[in-house]
Amino acid sequence: MNIGFLGLGNMGGPMAQNLLKAGRSVLAFDLSAEAMATIEKAGGELASDPTELAKRELDIVFTMLPAAQHVRSVYLGENGLLAHGSPNTLFVDCSTIDPHTARDVAAQAQDKGITLIDAPVSGGTKGATEGTLTFMVGGPEEGFNKAKQALADMGKNIVHCGDTGNGQVAKVANNMLLAISMIGVAEAMNLGVALGMDAKTLAGIINTSSGRCWSSDTNNPYPGALEGVPASRGYTGGFGSALMLKDMGLAMEAAHQVEQPVILGAIAKQMYQQLCNLGHDKLDFSAIMKLYQQD
Amino acid sequence: MNIGFLGLGNMGGPMAQNLLKAGRSVLAFDLSAEAMATIEKAGGELASDPTELAKRELDIVFTMLPAAQHVRSVYLGENGLLAHGSPNTLFVDCSTIDPHTARDVAAQAQDKGITLIDAPVSGGTKGATEGTLTFMVGGPEEGFNKAKQALADMGKNIVHCGDTGNGQVAKVANNMLLAISMIGVAEAMNLGVALGMDAKTLAGIINTSSGRCWSSDTNNPYPGALEGVPASRGYTGGFGSALMLKDMGLAMEAAHQVEQPVILGAIAKQMYQQLCNLGHDKLDFSAIMKLYQQD
Amino acid sequence: MNIGFLGLGNMGGPMAQNLLKAGRSVLAFDLSAEAMATIEKAGGELASDPTELAKRELDIVFTMLPAAQHVRSVYLGENGLLAHGSPNTLFVDCSTIDPHTARDVAAQAQDKGITLIDAPVSGGTKGATEGTLTFMVGGPEEGFNKAKQALADMGKNIVHCGDTGNGQVAKVANNMLLAISMIGVAEAMNLGVALGMDAKTLAGIINTSSGRCWSSDTNNPYPGALEGVPASRGYTGGFGSALMLKDMGLAMEAAHQVEQPVILGAIAKQMYQQLCNLGHDKLDFSAIMKLYQQD
Amino acid sequence: MNIGFLGLGNMGGPMAQNLLKAGRSVLAFDLSAEAMATIEKAGGELASDPTELAKRELDIVFTMLPAAQHVRSVYLGENGLLAHGSPNTLFVDCSTIDPHTARDVAAQAQDKGITLIDAPVSGGTKGATEGTLTFMVGGPEEGFNKAKQALADMGKNIVHCGDTGNGQVAKVANNMLLAISMIGVAEAMNLGVALGMDAKTLAGIINTSSGRCWSSDTNNPYPGALEGVPASRGYTGGFGSALMLKDMGLAMEAAHQVEQPVILGAIAKQMYQQLCNLGHDKLDFSAIMKLYQQD
Repeated sequence: MNIGFLGLGNMGGPMAQNLLKAGRSVLAFDLSAEAMATIEKAGGELASDPTELAKRELDIVFTMLPAAQHVRSVYLGENGLLAHGSPNTLFVDCSTIDPHTARDVAAQAQDKGITLIDAPVSGGTKGATEGTLTFMVGGPEEGFNKAKQALADMGKNIVHCGDTGNGQVAKVANNMLLAISMIGVAEAMNLGVALGMDAKTLAGIINTSSGRCWSSDTNNPYPGALEGVPASRGYTGGFGSALMLKDMGLAMEAAHQVEQPVILGAIAKQMYQQLCNLGHDKLDFSAIMKLYQQD
Repeated sequence: MNIGFLGLGNMGGPMAQNLLKAGRSVLAFDLSAEAMATIEKAGGELASDPTELAKRELDIVFTMLPAAQHVRSVYLGENGLLAHGSPNTLFVDCSTIDPHTARDVAAQAQDKGITLIDAPVSGGTKGATEGTLTFMVGGPEEGFNKAKQALADMGKNIVHCGDTGNGQVAKVANNMLLAISMIGVAEAMNLGVALGMDAKTLAGIINTSSGRCWSSDTNNPYPGALEGVPASRGYTGGFGSALMLKDMGLAMEAAHQVEQPVILGAIAKQMYQQLCNLGHDKLDFSAIMKLYQQD
Repeated sequence: MNIGFLGLGNMGGPMAQNLLKAGRSVLAFDLSAEAMATIEKAGGELASDPTELAKRELDIVFTMLPAAQHVRSVYLGENGLLAHGSPNTLFVDCSTIDPHTARDVAAQAQDKGITLIDAPVSGGTKGATEGTLTFMVGGPEEGFNKAKQALADMGKNIVHCGDTGNGQVAKVANNMLLAISMIGVAEAMNLGVALGMDAKTLAGIINTSSGRCWSSDTNNPYPGALEGVPASRGYTGGFGSALMLKDMGLAMEAAHQVEQPVILGAIAKQMYQQLCNLGHDKLDFSAIMKLYQQD
Repeated sequence: MNIGFLGLGNMGGPMAQNLLKAGRSVLAFDLSAEAMATIEKAGGELASDPTELAKRELDIVFTMLPAAQHVRSVYLGENGLLAHGSPNTLFVDCSTIDPHTARDVAAQAQDKGITLIDAPVSGGTKGATEGTLTFMVGGPEEGFNKAKQALADMGKNIVHCGDTGNGQVAKVANNMLLAISMIGVAEAMNLGVALGMDAKTLAGIINTSSGRCWSSDTNNPYPGALEGVPASRGYTGGFGSALMLKDMGLAMEAAHQVEQPVILGAIAKQMYQQLCNLGHDKLDFSAIMKLYQQD
């Protein structure tokens, strides 16, 4: 199976390397010469430009880009992937973007007989490096089936979420809930400790009660409540606050488009904006705890 | 072990019956003649007034009352339990009240050499009837140990949360987080479905992702997302919205006393007020979904 | 002074008529044949397409369009106003759009030597009909001065807000504050009346105290607090909730672009979404009162 | 007219002095020897204890106390004002407390034939010193009329808000709205300036538009937008954030008692808690601006 990979950043770089480790042949492209050198060293072939990725009639081309505008330009631009791509190639966009754009670009692909599926990831750079990402895939069954094996080289949880765009929907919905529950845990822990409880004891009770959630039992934001989590090492590592803010922006945009209220979601977004503006954009998003302990 | 039980309402009645079923001798009191008749039929002895419960030098006296003012009056009143109680009796208050009152009343008990521990419950009337309640216990180790067996007759999860008042702290912190995460799930499910996903599929993905929480995987508020939950039967049964509103009132009061911000908690409380004012106070609190689907 | 007018909807139609009433010669265009017929009857000349408006070298061309996408397409499209416009013509966009788009389009105009200023309005259809609109103008001094007279034919308050885009900034900031204070008044009035005060008395006190604001003294949302306002006639007339929701969308987008938190603004937006979803999108935005009195 | 004054703190002290300046004879009491010395120097007579204030059958006794618990204890305690007071004396409580307590204490006064009216103030220590306070009075017409002259010695705006407790209702409703609109102005100003507008220009436009409010045109929180306001001198002077937080606590309590939602009010309260926890409790409440400009 011949694979193309466009976008070798913090996430895409390690993902492409995992494909190589799994024995795939990979034709890669990135604007950064450094990223290109790294992938070549790892055994990858280098494309001279994105167009080459499209023209080669590879089995699958993965794209991993920062935002919707890049996806639009890479796929829909004059020398873009759709202009030169073949119906024999499956395109898989792993970028996290709004569902509306994902569906729009996929529809334009379909007009040319090309299948483009969306497969945003969760798991962060750690998951990308270790090959333990979760892929949330939206698109037709046969596209999902064709991509499955290669996705499994890069992640361990490959979920088919339904039609085109649903990968993005699942991610945006999950992450909005995640942002809210993280703030909820921060408030509950802060309140409980202020009222006299030990943080570890409180976390232990919550984690076996109806308040239990990933933000409490796996990434508890209160320093010392859990071992080995960002909160216990100055909030380093993990999923950056700036990325959470980006995802919340996508959630708000999506909610606006379908005219649905997201009350706690809206406040959560503003709080991550506050956190980033305090200079904590690179810390794990559990650093939202800092808004409750500023003195 | 001779046990006293004061307060035979929706929760206290079934709890006292479970003590009887476990073979305990129970001296009971309630202002409702009907509740008294029921407990007598189940094998309980009836006290003529609360004072009798205090004077008999029982091993343990449980109290289960609606609010802090009742706890104050029952324990601290002129003919209250502390005025006539013995240091040989362990008092266990299962009411859900604010930590401040719990600690204040326990301190006044201690002044008379009497041990009073707080042991609020979660699990609702279903848990009370089936003997599967969770007890969150605050108070000295020896009090906890003395109460443990009898509590185990009424519940299956008996947690020592630390010193006096910490049972209330654990409950208030857990339930505030629960209220927030329930609204978070309602928003995420509503948004995801509006964006085109199937509710069951979305719940399935969230439940294996970082958004997972009790409100999503055990009591999902979106009709049809899970089987056998309140949302799938018109929000009947479960934990009433009015009770959640009461607990949120306690959370706000506690946060005010220790001067800590609870931003999402504060909004969550207002939303449960809205829900109750719409006439849904008796529905399970997952009915918060209705605020997102009002048309 | 020869004037062009593009966009003869609820707002643009009456505005163009006021120019005619003031003795201006107006060349007008709209896609609606009915709107065209009305303006012709009022003495206007009809253009055959937007291009004609650009080619005629008029002194000023006003545009009044529903959203940013229309502004982009009308100005930047292949046959758009900038492609055929002359540096001798001043373009004045009265649409309410995001500052970013306003500045972007104006910059592209400037590249062709054309001056485009932004002049969004407040005052609603009533103000448009009666010629009492407020214009918030962003752009160079000489553009403002050239437009001033004609704007005065359509409004009574013509404010220069500074450079290009600042008209939009002023409007978005003012309206976000308006949305917040309207909800604040609704909450304060509802609370005060629930606590036993007469609505008129309460409004009277607030209006001479530190809570006073336009939403309280000019458009009080509590039925009966003021005479002759939407709240006293079933919330008909006034500034529609859907328009407020649209403006709040612009505010959120603008805040996102400049990375600033808008906490109450974000919730206010969601509440207007709720109000619209309840079917009240055509009522005056003071109908937000309904969220507090739903039973 | 013989007047008694209980509570000579930051507010009560200057108020009692203004009564003396107006030629009234004042019998005063406070626990602080320093406050007593000051009032004696100003011509006041000193009472040996609160009971003396009650026993003297004065025409009016004013009380100015920090919180509801003090009002309860001063009026209802064993040696309290009601135990020894005469029906010939009108009692006027100027403390800011919750309406529920105000009504409860007044009802207990009435049971003894004593009239107690509530007359909380706004205007801060500056208004107290300069005699320009606003009094919001709740109670029977004849009580209001009897107090009017003496109140006019201490303030310039004496408003009858209706029956007992309504003075507190008016204050709590007004101040909740004030807290909300202040945050609204902070957000609007911060957003507008971030989008490129000059603060003074923006404030000028808002102040003549639908966003205008006291928080914008009289106490604008953006540094430099207005001259001579706290924001232009480091937020010193004015109405302290801790006092606003206290009033918001009363508002939340009152809303809870009458079971009404106060969504923006609830968040506003939390934000003032954040501000105080950052150490800004003594700054004017317009310092809420700091939450938007923390870096």
